Amino acid sequence: MELKHCINYLLSASQNTVFQYFSQKLSDYNITPAQYGVLNCLWGNGDLTPKQIGKLLLLEASSVSGILDRMQTNKLIERKIDPNNRRTIIVSATKKANDMRCAIEAIVVDMNNKFLSQLSDMEKDKLRSNLQKIIEIGRK
Amino acid sequence: MELKHCINYLLSASQNTVFQYFSQKLSDYNITPAQYGVLNCLWGNGDLTPKQIGKLLLLEASSVSGILDRMQTNKLIERKIDPNNRRTIIVSATKKANDMRCAIEAIVVDMNNKFLSQLSDMEKDKLRSNLQKIIEIGRK
Repeated sequence: MELKHCINYLLSASQNTVFQYFSQKLSDYNITPAQYGVLNCLWGNGDLTPKQIGKLLLLEASSVSGILDRMQTNKLIERKIDPNNRRTIIVSATKKANDMRCAIEAIVVDMNNKFLSQLSDMEKDKLRSNLQKIIEIGRK
Repeated sequence: MELKHCINYLLSASQNTVFQYFSQKLSDYNITPAQYGVLNCLWGNGDLTPKQIGKLLLLEASSVSGILDRMQTNKLIERKIDPNNRRTIIVSATKKANDMRCAIEAIVVDMNNKFLSQLSDMEKDKLRSNLQKIIEIGRK
């Protein structure tokens, strides 16, 4: 099979190019794409447990824990003990993170527009749903 | 923007799931997806310089050099000095690598079939060409 037909090669090369661009844009705000993922979860859902964040981002608990550690050091999130269940930790976005929300969401929209600029709206939807199918197959 | 619509998230999650599966299958032969990329170039084109390999795989010279080092240690490739140009290094696949070719190519076909099983032939072509468009945009 030619490399340009191999789905692992195509996904690795396209992910790498999008990730590099996105990382570079987000670095102005001193955050990473993975940290944006966490903020997106918190902005869309309100406070969450680390387990809920991992489920939304399809990440292992150990990966989530490492990302949250760095975000806490950088004052982007707070971890509090749930007053209703003292064995549960609740993660919330800080004011510092919330103040950057508008600018960061503009970067996300710009990045999506840039890389999908040659696709019609129908083609964009199809690409997204086909990538989602690949993700689902991996979870089975 | 919802995370499930963000192209960085979709590519990262789909690449991660395909890469994990592919890595696990290739580990039976003690090679990585990146090393398979190099072998694919050599099998399709014959002997190549490290620069030519980097161009085909869209990788920096330093990354190619690291991959080749590990492949040479593992006796998958040889580096020779080009007799026609003593400043040029030529990389070739070893007999050990060539003996695994059939089995490794079967893994690649199986992996592509698995993750693209829900797509028609036309949808597969479209997905590949749209990922190729994303790669090209990143190279501009």
